[in-house]
Amino acid sequence: MLNKNILVLGAGRSSAALISYLLQQAEQNSWRVTVGDVELKNAQAHVGRHPHGEAILFSIDNTETSTAAIAAADVVISLMPAHLHTKAAALCIRNRKHLITASYVSEEMKQFDSEAKQLGLLFLNECGLDPGIDHMSAMQVVDRIKEAGGQVTSFESFTGGLIAPDTDPENPWRYKFTWNPRNVVVAGQGTAKLLQDGKYRYIPYQQLFTRTTPVVVPGFGAFDGYANRDSLKYLETYRLQHIQTMVRGTLRNKGFCSAWNVLVQLGCCDESYIMENIGSMTHREFLQSFLPTNEPAEKIVAGLFNLKADGEELKRLVWSGLFSSEKIGLSEGSPARILEHILNKRWKLQPGDKDFIVMWHRFRYTLADKQKCVEAYLTATGTDEVQTAMAKTVGLPLGIAAKLLLQNRFRTVGVTIPVTSEFYTPILEELSLHGIVLQEQEVTY
Amino acid sequence: MLNKNILVLGAGRSSAALISYLLQQAEQNSWRVTVGDVELKNAQAHVGRHPHGEAILFSIDNTETSTAAIAAADVVISLMPAHLHTKAAALCIRNRKHLITASYVSEEMKQFDSEAKQLGLLFLNECGLDPGIDHMSAMQVVDRIKEAGGQVTSFESFTGGLIAPDTDPENPWRYKFTWNPRNVVVAGQGTAKLLQDGKYRYIPYQQLFTRTTPVVVPGFGAFDGYANRDSLKYLETYRLQHIQTMVRGTLRNKGFCSAWNVLVQLGCCDESYIMENIGSMTHREFLQSFLPTNEPAEKIVAGLFNLKADGEELKRLVWSGLFSSEKIGLSEGSPARILEHILNKRWKLQPGDKDFIVMWHRFRYTLADKQKCVEAYLTATGTDEVQTAMAKTVGLPLGIAAKLLLQNRFRTVGVTIPVTSEFYTPILEELSLHGIVLQEQEVTY
Repeated sequence: MLNKNILVLGAGRSSAALISYLLQQAEQNSWRVTVGDVELKNAQAHVGRHPHGEAILFSIDNTETSTAAIAAADVVISLMPAHLHTKAAALCIRNRKHLITASYVSEEMKQFDSEAKQLGLLFLNECGLDPGIDHMSAMQVVDRIKEAGGQVTSFESFTGGLIAPDTDPENPWRYKFTWNPRNVVVAGQGTAKLLQDGKYRYIPYQQLFTRTTPVVVPGFGAFDGYANRDSLKYLETYRLQHIQTMVRGTLRNKGFCSAWNVLVQLGCCDESYIMENIGSMTHREFLQSFLPTNEPAEKIVAGLFNLKADGEELKRLVWSGLFSSEKIGLSEGSPARILEHILNKRWKLQPGDKDFIVMWHRFRYTLADKQKCVEAYLTATGTDEVQTAMAKTVGLPLGIAAKLLLQNRFRTVGVTIPVTSEFYTPILEELSLHGIVLQEQEVTY
Repeated sequence: MLNKNILVLGAGRSSAALISYLLQQAEQNSWRVTVGDVELKNAQAHVGRHPHGEAILFSIDNTETSTAAIAAADVVISLMPAHLHTKAAALCIRNRKHLITASYVSEEMKQFDSEAKQLGLLFLNECGLDPGIDHMSAMQVVDRIKEAGGQVTSFESFTGGLIAPDTDPENPWRYKFTWNPRNVVVAGQGTAKLLQDGKYRYIPYQQLFTRTTPVVVPGFGAFDGYANRDSLKYLETYRLQHIQTMVRGTLRNKGFCSAWNVLVQLGCCDESYIMENIGSMTHREFLQSFLPTNEPAEKIVAGLFNLKADGEELKRLVWSGLFSSEKIGLSEGSPARILEHILNKRWKLQPGDKDFIVMWHRFRYTLADKQKCVEAYLTATGTDEVQTAMAKTVGLPLGIAAKLLLQNRFRTVGVTIPVTSEFYTPILEELSLHGIVLQEQEVTY
């Protein structure tokens, strides 16, 4: 008899590794793994004919069937779009079920904390890659430094979903869409908030891609990190209230940010209005819409941003076809939607393409009156365009957390994230068996 | 017996000249002028003890009193905040009254068009300065060119509310807050849309203050114009569908835009979040929050934007106290709110200060196969800090339009703006008696 039922909600792009992991472990743990999606065939594709698996049609808004599915589960893992987690959480409260997600804790999710605590339920969020493995791997180092009597003075952390070195070698961006393309195009809109040298700092969108942190990962080359939205809210979560510098962000290969900044500065990433006459336009005409005159676009762009005609920025924009006379092929759209469509012609993952995750942390701390610095990194490479490194690094922590939860290994209840040893020690331990390990090196301050 | 009643809604900053105009003409026209405001004393201050005037307490949301006031009127002039015009319009429909505003026609206002037409009512909007006199003065020239057989190929128009040459002579911005300060600080957010050299163009906020049009007004010096939101929607309104260039925007003294651009680029005009620790901060610390390091702010700003240490941009920022160690004096706020507060210390109109309006148009056209160009401008200077040029140029067209309406001089009904001769000819004619006249000169193309 199967004595535990794990319900996975959402069988999209990021679910492959999670579902594989759960099914592989299902027999020895006597689990039933139920996978629900609004498209039954998505769930079926992942479950196949596995004796411990079941694919179901699941829509969170169909109260009757979603209640039945959640009532039959012991733990719910939600991979649905982030705004739907709240609905799953409400059903988990009503049916007294644990919940695990890889998403940021929203204000709405926080509201479930006291009820979940009263009912003895764990609502574990931010337990994927970023947020997730970044929290866990960083907190393990932070806690170790503190236990040794050190005081952390600076924490910087950047994670990126890139492409493997042997994938698309002529692609100068070293980037493809391995995640929601729309989110890539509009990334960074709003203002990044961080702490630097003891001061709160604010970086607006128009400065974000120029104010980057250079990062070198031994054996993997040079990268640039740019800050993500609100790093300040992690001062307390990471128990680093007295730190001088705190920034979390996104990592891109060196050269990406300065080229992307051209598109940002021109306004090509704007979602707020619909452009005129798109149906008949070429890529080049799209770009020209953001330029002041009808002179050759390459010349104007180079002049506006003080770029060399044969420089790295223009090379990337040319490679992406932004100066080409190809028709866009959309009938209408916002600048961001059209840019996504143009970029996707070159940035779509092709069969055989492998994605590549790089996570990098830098910790500065004082120990016995000496200033120290540790740099740490973690990489993961996808198997192919389906079993991506992204799916693996998001899915495995979720799957491992579900297993540990069903083994009663966690004492914490309520809405939380994995920043304490109770969570990060066993999860990181099992991740290391899958080759996902943080490499550390002491560097000169 | 007084046979017509004019109701003015809103007795704020821009109402002084309108109310004066109406009261001066009240006796000869047998008008009663009723002025309503949410603060009775504001209305009383403008009406005084004038025998033809009455000050009333008026809140658009108090249906009983607002209906009574509107029912007793023959024409309603709304100077209320723009979002309240819709409520006034609904009451005007119900009580079959004409309505005049100086605000842009909103989507909501458009909805009243067919009802107003059925009831034979005129809802005349955009009848102040900008929008207002700009439309009227431009359309008079456009129509004259067309009547002479010419074809307009380019129309550029910029208007600014500045300060008079003899006001605050050491102020390097040549600017003070003569209008809603908040709107000045957040001006230009969003994307400007325009037509240039036959192409639709989009200028995002981050480019807006660098992509300016140089303007010279004979006898008044050099200015820069930057584009306002959507110039495209006037292609049809101005009957200029076949034009190559169409841009409407804001005028500032030369040097303003490049200095303001520093604040825009740093993110100081952002309204979207509340800053930390403002209570204890100085102006300098506010600015430093947007800079990457703790090095001297002057040096970093000069470096980031490639400015000379003794250049015009830094001179303006220094004059505004942005590098000073003065406490801000607010307990909390968004960057935009704090910047407004700091700027207001130097930019608030003082007793005796005079504001100054400059409007400038450039028309390019072909006539008998020759390329021609006319530049035209209009200026107005305030009497003091209450009877401002802004109040005069906004208020007089409204007052004149109300008078002409009560004289049955308009045939058009429905929701409209004054871009036809029916409106602009008599309104501009009377404005000229008040010294508000467009000066024109043919220039070499």
